[in-house]
Amino acid sequence: MTRPRQFLSDNSAAVHPRLWEAMRAADAAQTPYDGDALSQELDARFGETFGRDCAALWVATGTAANCLALATMVQPHGGVVCHREAHIEMDEGGAPGFYLHGAKLLLVEGESAKLTPETITSVLDAIRDDVHQVQPHAISITQASEYGCAYRPGEVSAIAELARSRGLGFHMDGARFANATAFLGCSAGEAAKDVDALSFGCVKNGGMNAEAILFFDEGLADVARYRRKRAGHLQSKGRFLAAQLLAMLEGDLWLENAQQANAAAQEIAGACGERLMHPVEANELFVRCTAEEREALRAQGFEFYDWGPDAARLVTAWDTREDDALALAKAVSGL
Amino acid sequence: MTRPRQFLSDNSAAVHPRLWEAMRAADAAQTPYDGDALSQELDARFGETFGRDCAALWVATGTAANCLALATMVQPHGGVVCHREAHIEMDEGGAPGFYLHGAKLLLVEGESAKLTPETITSVLDAIRDDVHQVQPHAISITQASEYGCAYRPGEVSAIAELARSRGLGFHMDGARFANATAFLGCSAGEAAKDVDALSFGCVKNGGMNAEAILFFDEGLADVARYRRKRAGHLQSKGRFLAAQLLAMLEGDLWLENAQQANAAAQEIAGACGERLMHPVEANELFVRCTAEEREALRAQGFEFYDWGPDAARLVTAWDTREDDALALAKAVSGL
Amino acid sequence: MTRPRQFLSDNSAAVHPRLWEAMRAADAAQTPYDGDALSQELDARFGETFGRDCAALWVATGTAANCLALATMVQPHGGVVCHREAHIEMDEGGAPGFYLHGAKLLLVEGESAKLTPETITSVLDAIRDDVHQVQPHAISITQASEYGCAYRPGEVSAIAELARSRGLGFHMDGARFANATAFLGCSAGEAAKDVDALSFGCVKNGGMNAEAILFFDEGLADVARYRRKRAGHLQSKGRFLAAQLLAMLEGDLWLENAQQANAAAQEIAGACGERLMHPVEANELFVRCTAEEREALRAQGFEFYDWGPDAARLVTAWDTREDDALALAKAVSGL
Amino acid sequence: MTRPRQFLSDNSAAVHPRLWEAMRAADAAQTPYDGDALSQELDARFGETFGRDCAALWVATGTAANCLALATMVQPHGGVVCHREAHIEMDEGGAPGFYLHGAKLLLVEGESAKLTPETITSVLDAIRDDVHQVQPHAISITQASEYGCAYRPGEVSAIAELARSRGLGFHMDGARFANATAFLGCSAGEAAKDVDALSFGCVKNGGMNAEAILFFDEGLADVARYRRKRAGHLQSKGRFLAAQLLAMLEGDLWLENAQQANAAAQEIAGACGERLMHPVEANELFVRCTAEEREALRAQGFEFYDWGPDAARLVTAWDTREDDALALAKAVSGL
Repeated sequence: MTRPRQFLSDNSAAVHPRLWEAMRAADAAQTPYDGDALSQELDARFGETFGRDCAALWVATGTAANCLALATMVQPHGGVVCHREAHIEMDEGGAPGFYLHGAKLLLVEGESAKLTPETITSVLDAIRDDVHQVQPHAISITQASEYGCAYRPGEVSAIAELARSRGLGFHMDGARFANATAFLGCSAGEAAKDVDALSFGCVKNGGMNAEAILFFDEGLADVARYRRKRAGHLQSKGRFLAAQLLAMLEGDLWLENAQQANAAAQEIAGACGERLMHPVEANELFVRCTAEEREALRAQGFEFYDWGPDAARLVTAWDTREDDALALAKAVSGL
Repeated sequence: MTRPRQFLSDNSAAVHPRLWEAMRAADAAQTPYDGDALSQELDARFGETFGRDCAALWVATGTAANCLALATMVQPHGGVVCHREAHIEMDEGGAPGFYLHGAKLLLVEGESAKLTPETITSVLDAIRDDVHQVQPHAISITQASEYGCAYRPGEVSAIAELARSRGLGFHMDGARFANATAFLGCSAGEAAKDVDALSFGCVKNGGMNAEAILFFDEGLADVARYRRKRAGHLQSKGRFLAAQLLAMLEGDLWLENAQQANAAAQEIAGACGERLMHPVEANELFVRCTAEEREALRAQGFEFYDWGPDAARLVTAWDTREDDALALAKAVSGL
Repeated sequence: MTRPRQFLSDNSAAVHPRLWEAMRAADAAQTPYDGDALSQELDARFGETFGRDCAALWVATGTAANCLALATMVQPHGGVVCHREAHIEMDEGGAPGFYLHGAKLLLVEGESAKLTPETITSVLDAIRDDVHQVQPHAISITQASEYGCAYRPGEVSAIAELARSRGLGFHMDGARFANATAFLGCSAGEAAKDVDALSFGCVKNGGMNAEAILFFDEGLADVARYRRKRAGHLQSKGRFLAAQLLAMLEGDLWLENAQQANAAAQEIAGACGERLMHPVEANELFVRCTAEEREALRAQGFEFYDWGPDAARLVTAWDTREDDALALAKAVSGL
Repeated sequence: MTRPRQFLSDNSAAVHPRLWEAMRAADAAQTPYDGDALSQELDARFGETFGRDCAALWVATGTAANCLALATMVQPHGGVVCHREAHIEMDEGGAPGFYLHGAKLLLVEGESAKLTPETITSVLDAIRDDVHQVQPHAISITQASEYGCAYRPGEVSAIAELARSRGLGFHMDGARFANATAFLGCSAGEAAKDVDALSFGCVKNGGMNAEAILFFDEGLADVARYRRKRAGHLQSKGRFLAAQLLAMLEGDLWLENAQQANAAAQEIAGACGERLMHPVEANELFVRCTAEEREALRAQGFEFYDWGPDAARLVTAWDTREDDALALAKAVSGL
């Protein structure tokens, strides 16, 4: 037995060499906060990538990105429609309650942690339109979903249409937006079609500690700038966050990294067959297997999380070694 | 004229080479959040430095450090006694109101932005002890103060004594704690004598984006861990923050960097004479000078902020070049 | 057709004559806030009624009572275990999110809107003990439940035992506590056995605008006093609220009123047979009936709310006329 | 010595007989919350009184009225410009911090607790327009001021003009609006000229526990309705609050009561001469007198609060007996 073969999460993967280079290069430019040349370049570069005017703000974590984005759309007495297994509901330690000052998450059920206009509508319609119940102010979806499934552009725009018709903001948690976009093979703009704000993930895709919040509405961005400072997320050396993001966009490194992670996931998926609980459309696999089977995999050096008593979650990353993926595929086949 | 000679702030100075090295070395260790070996080492290393058991949490900014520390001591209906020119009052975009859920800052006047038991007591005693007025829950002081002045150990412990006698928490904002400690020539533990929590600054002293919150009470730290996540400040690659902090402590680099900044400040201070508005005990100088005089300095390439209509603020950093400091001293002398 | 026969809710019933008298008598005593003799008498009188030392605070609404009680037990980063159909979850317009500063309601399923140690435990045990998930700080149950069912003393104390063993606060929403107690035929203390705080309802039971929060822990009450003022619920003529509450306790008027409402409910229940969706243990009936049947009842002058497409909710009050209850029973029989 | 002669405060005065009658009459009308006929009549009746369309919401306290009004104008990251001695700053137990989710009060100095465009502007202009400082979102003034002084219509509209030009909301705390209006001898509309929202006081003027928030902008009122419920201030028997307010408007009882209180204050003021610290333009007197003099007054049965070591605050109310006022005037003359 040698080094572990890590399939625990992409959230602690190595930092990509081109990001290291970009950060080193940023050391010299000493304008504080987001006044530096790199931070000032973000709007234009993300605008090109998305084919749409946008305002891009860096923050250090996806939780901060999601919550700051939502805070621009949701008043404290309102609610956010999201999936019952959404990251904002399950894994952010109550951050939405903090950032939205007590606003409520309005939970929707649905396959593979995806929302549809129908499931959203059924939740919306069950809310009495009076002051005794929390009224929805926004919808949030995750691209790729918490079960690694991608929304097709048409699915996204159908939800956007519903949001508009109900007067709701529309946010996309894109912690693994790169993986979804790489899978879809469409443009960034298509993968986030008609959203008002996107949390553009970078950390899980080879970044160190930079995520972007993209606002396709300058009014929202303006509010977010105040809220970011107020949340202690305005770093004085923000140039290092901007550098990471720009390096990620440069030459579409973000897609390249995602493709590597996705390819590794597909490699393993091919060996899983009926074990797969959800389609593999990004870099996460949810795989039925017994405690004994998991034990057998771990005995071979594979590291991963249990997913309840009868399954495992396997996550690949941009730096997953091809031989590790192949070995895991083989090991799963051999179960 | 060539490159600017920057005395604007230490908050965007270069990252120290030894921190870069430490961060690169941390890339491999992939346990997420604060489970990595580096993060796990912080308590012990800070404990050694301060000669006192402590729990150390990294965060990205001083604002987050201050507010998370205070949030463990102050209930939403309470207040924080601080100076009228404290950073938490003047420069954090209302972050205390956010993190403390509407708690109030109870403002004290005083020379050089320092508090004393007497000035604190006069504010405390003016608060009616009833539910109509916000009651104090904590005291916060800044070491070095916002005007670059250091609290002597005896001054700190006198305030600690007052806090204890009134049942109040005691927090120290140490954004420039290194500069104060270097000036005082005492131990870290003496410079933060009897505080309950310290925001230990690293960013202004050669860090990239890591500050430490030190709790000398494990109960407070436990609350802070939940609040940190809830505020979106729990980075998944926290190892890079831990690496910065450990490198800063290693061989007392934090003191060495501060000494350099302080020495540059003293160099300039020597030329300022009666112009100085406050004793120079850290790396900030507040210097009386007319608009014409400021113009003259800027014409020589010096960059700095105005401090009202009749003064300038000059800040040195660990990377201030000696020749720049000498040149500025000479320029000030020649006004 | 004459006057409507109101079974919509007890929340807007008439004010009992003895409360009117008590309020008139209170006009003279002009000490403001809760310093008047009547307010000062509450602790003792409630203490007698419950056979337990307590601190009693008046507030104007049940929502304020529930949320202020919980705010003393739950930190902003914590959660409250309650039933999915609890009033605090369904009908308070997000007030818990406001008063608890973003704390989360952790929802439990269960028959007749009642919790049990088992259902609570299953929710508690599903929460990962880490900072990524909101940790429970308190349990809240409703006596009688939102479906008009009473917790037996043993059921309450079993939940109290669980709360204690897990270090959780224990709150009871007693909007209809009188109805439950009257049904149980036990003492007030038994019906709220071992709770830390009780929202003692008065408005639905013949009050005008006074509810009491009873704290069986003085430390909690002390926090609540500050929070009450901070929430704008400290009325300067609080004597009128105290007067209502004292009149309600005097001669056990609270039980007498509840018995009348319960008796009317039983009268109707006797005619409902298999239509009843829940046992009738207070003054609410949930009755299966078709739209046509509801139409038929309304045609006879009965007013009530639909409960989904296939049921009606019928609520009696202290002032429900006996002939109206009899008429409704007869009408239901005749469906 | 007999009964005390109360000049402590108007906040606990008796309830006016016509309000008692109106409340009794309201007992029958049992539509809950604000759906009853009385509550529904408020907009029209206040609209007539103010000569301006308005939406009127009842609440139980002035603190709730002020904070709910401001919550519609001020985002959590913003601030409210008000006087350093404003009730919202000094006497509401931090309620603005709670209702505004941590927004900040931006304090202005000024004679007699009044603001002027000049003093407001000096505070506004000292705020750096960046994310590091809390930006103003609204202005709040008190009519009559905390020192019993009335803003003339031109003074109010000059501040309104400033608010508009800076894009700020404009709120008036009218806890003693009746006294100010009675003093000014102008219309209600003139006394609240161009404000966006007014807290219309009733409790201090013979009410029991009803205040009105008047919104001259329906959009604000709509938000306030949700926030009122969320704050636990939507009483189910709101008809009793509406009844108080309507009775107060009927036949201008509000002005009549205020005139009585004002007349009593003038009676006493006439005896105070140089002792008066502020013009007496409502029903409060701030009177210089030594501890011995206060003792002498108290020995004659007068009750009042000290105002610091060298003064007394004397407050009259609608039910101050004329002979008590005369007696106090005489007693002050004789000091």
